[in-house]
Amino acid sequence: MKRALVSQTPQKVGQEVLIKGWVNTRRDHGKITFIDLCDRTGLVQVVFAGIEKVKQLRPQWVVEIRGIVKKRPQSMVKPELATGKIEVAAKELKILAPAAELPFDMGGPELKVSLPTLLDFRPLSLRHPKIQAIFKVQETIITGFRESLRSQGFTEIQVPTIVPTATEGGAQLFRLRYFDRSAFLAQSPQLYKQIMVGVFERVFTLARAYRAEPSVTTRHLTEYISLDAEMGFIDSFEEIMEVVEKVIRDTFAKVEKENRAELGLFSASLPKLSKAFPRLKLREAQEIIFKRTGRDQRQEPDLDPEDEREICRYAQEKYGSELIFITHFPTAKRPFYTYPDPEDPEFTCSFDLLGRGLEWITGGQRINDYQTLLEHIRKWGNRPRDFEIYLQAFKYGLPPEGGFALGAERITMQILGLENVREASLFPRDMERIDVSLPKKRATK
Amino acid sequence: MKRALVSQTPQKVGQEVLIKGWVNTRRDHGKITFIDLCDRTGLVQVVFAGIEKVKQLRPQWVVEIRGIVKKRPQSMVKPELATGKIEVAAKELKILAPAAELPFDMGGPELKVSLPTLLDFRPLSLRHPKIQAIFKVQETIITGFRESLRSQGFTEIQVPTIVPTATEGGAQLFRLRYFDRSAFLAQSPQLYKQIMVGVFERVFTLARAYRAEPSVTTRHLTEYISLDAEMGFIDSFEEIMEVVEKVIRDTFAKVEKENRAELGLFSASLPKLSKAFPRLKLREAQEIIFKRTGRDQRQEPDLDPEDEREICRYAQEKYGSELIFITHFPTAKRPFYTYPDPEDPEFTCSFDLLGRGLEWITGGQRINDYQTLLEHIRKWGNRPRDFEIYLQAFKYGLPPEGGFALGAERITMQILGLENVREASLFPRDMERIDVSLPKKRATK
Repeated sequence: MKRALVSQTPQKVGQEVLIKGWVNTRRDHGKITFIDLCDRTGLVQVVFAGIEKVKQLRPQWVVEIRGIVKKRPQSMVKPELATGKIEVAAKELKILAPAAELPFDMGGPELKVSLPTLLDFRPLSLRHPKIQAIFKVQETIITGFRESLRSQGFTEIQVPTIVPTATEGGAQLFRLRYFDRSAFLAQSPQLYKQIMVGVFERVFTLARAYRAEPSVTTRHLTEYISLDAEMGFIDSFEEIMEVVEKVIRDTFAKVEKENRAELGLFSASLPKLSKAFPRLKLREAQEIIFKRTGRDQRQEPDLDPEDEREICRYAQEKYGSELIFITHFPTAKRPFYTYPDPEDPEFTCSFDLLGRGLEWITGGQRINDYQTLLEHIRKWGNRPRDFEIYLQAFKYGLPPEGGFALGAERITMQILGLENVREASLFPRDMERIDVSLPKKRATK
Repeated sequence: MKRALVSQTPQKVGQEVLIKGWVNTRRDHGKITFIDLCDRTGLVQVVFAGIEKVKQLRPQWVVEIRGIVKKRPQSMVKPELATGKIEVAAKELKILAPAAELPFDMGGPELKVSLPTLLDFRPLSLRHPKIQAIFKVQETIITGFRESLRSQGFTEIQVPTIVPTATEGGAQLFRLRYFDRSAFLAQSPQLYKQIMVGVFERVFTLARAYRAEPSVTTRHLTEYISLDAEMGFIDSFEEIMEVVEKVIRDTFAKVEKENRAELGLFSASLPKLSKAFPRLKLREAQEIIFKRTGRDQRQEPDLDPEDEREICRYAQEKYGSELIFITHFPTAKRPFYTYPDPEDPEFTCSFDLLGRGLEWITGGQRINDYQTLLEHIRKWGNRPRDFEIYLQAFKYGLPPEGGFALGAERITMQILGLENVREASLFPRDMERIDVSLPKKRATK
């Protein structure tokens, strides 16, 4: 007999079905036992009478049940449940795998545990419907990103994570032993995606990015998923922001369509967007913040967290938008490849997209002239010979280009209103944890 | 004026267009100069008369050209070219970026350079249409894999690459410095995808896999793209092979449809498939090889490269199939998690899919019983405490499950008939190269 998914059971009233899944809860009422059974498509109530083995069942036991789908008595209908009008009357029970006693209750709508417990028991906590929902939303975000870019003529590429030199600042890089020498884990796919503009003009990649930042915050992971795009033949860096806008709109539309239930679990809604995303130069934003709050940040090279929150409040009040572009960050504080604004070279053709008080996306135009790039590499304290492959792309002709990047975990967190980015990573890595808490020992070398 | 892509020019006869791209070749005929211009969509001929600047142009210079699309005289039509019936009469030329003199000719249909040169000049060599084609095919393979699995109820997941312990054999692992201790790069997403069966039942991932094998072959990379899938609630490991068959058929159909031109450049065709893929137990395959060749490998735990080629010849002759499953490898030679065949526990419920003389996919059923898994981990010489998170998934109930994995680069190589897997990796890593050839120095620690 072929397995029926839980979501199919309401269409099979009167029929015999074989369902498989995990026990969510067991309720005994004298000779009758109710089991709530979960599979990847939902939850259904199963009624047992005269099957003794059911008394063994505990939460997370894996079972296979043969039974008849029946309409529930009207008084027992649960309209909030997709299977709320039916139940399965069990005829046969097979235990596929038992489970140990759970360290916490998995049956309720909320998983009431601390973050360390949530992560210490990750294989279990991930099974909770509300935690699952985070990663269904994340899957949609990633798929939406890909689909939007493909529809705009971008090619998907796969770039390496092991890199030969510490090109973007050695302190934050993880060093690894590569046979008889050292190598590093890439901080981003930046240099490779730029090279690939010379091949496919418009490229995107789902990359791993690694940051050895020795700090623990609610917004940072040491390994994260970077959604990166890069495009050639631009006339100005505003074209890049237009692509960003379309990616955001397309992705939000897809989440809206496919993850209504998941958003509902978090009482979350997608950020409100105005017709065009508001855009402010950094100095304009600082002036506004000064006028609104009296905080004088007008000489600062970047927005601090309080600035970010304030300018997002402003965008919402003034434009009805929960997202806002901040542009023209100072040249000296951006990476060597950032394109200085020809009209004011102290500032760059760069942007951040902020949402709900936090940076979501960073991007900008890059220097594509070989000689200028060489000069910048030296001026930023790097050695051109460490960039041999990268520089080749420009030596042999690269058009005006730019791109952007976003962290999948952070956007998931921001859409769902999670408190900590770790909740949006299946198996988060930070300074203190790789799956389990790290013992405070020295590395053995 | 909005840019027209090269592929759009044949529809614009008589109109003025703005095209952008790279110079492929320049041919001077007295006062007239012909430029073949390439962009991401193709190649078009541009005719210059009276624009002096065109004489500066060399291969790979990046330009922007305004001109009128004209029909070619009948005698000049090139039917093999998508734009072969037209040409662009240039009115204005703008140089966007110059290029240095090329180290080799990029203009011909083949790139006639050695593998080291191909890789030493990767940003340039990747621009050759025949090299580009490899990665267009690879993109389709990866997209086809994802689409096929999604259509079969699989959820896409993102799993980490930094792992805490050397769980699958330390010698082949890369070790990295993780703050004040050591960590490793994952050999595969195996343990995490199994954990995720407990969450979504059916999962797939596009993962990075790392192998510190100190050998240089034509088939191995130290970093590669692993397409991994895992599924729960199986009745037998043959269900996994059925999913593999569907993934292969769906992916081939997509490549056939979307990459006809790319396949053509390699005179490549997709492997022929029989109605059901042939399946042989390892011992049966060895018996057949013995009968066909006299080579007695009947006690060997695996097929060697010559065996793989021979059994593929057999599959093609006997079944008209270029792919064949080999099943039931010996328990002692497979990883600890492999499920022993209940009818003959010396052998496992495992399989390899071979194609055109090489292993393409490996997979099988896994042990899902917690106690058995504990025993196997010990028996295989590992410590259960190194598998804390992994073991939790089974402790809290995991259904019978299994899965499979394939290397994207290897399948690309096999479909296109490339000689070396490095050709199918944008920036291949091996023992001797990370972008550039590695100096033979000691690691500085």
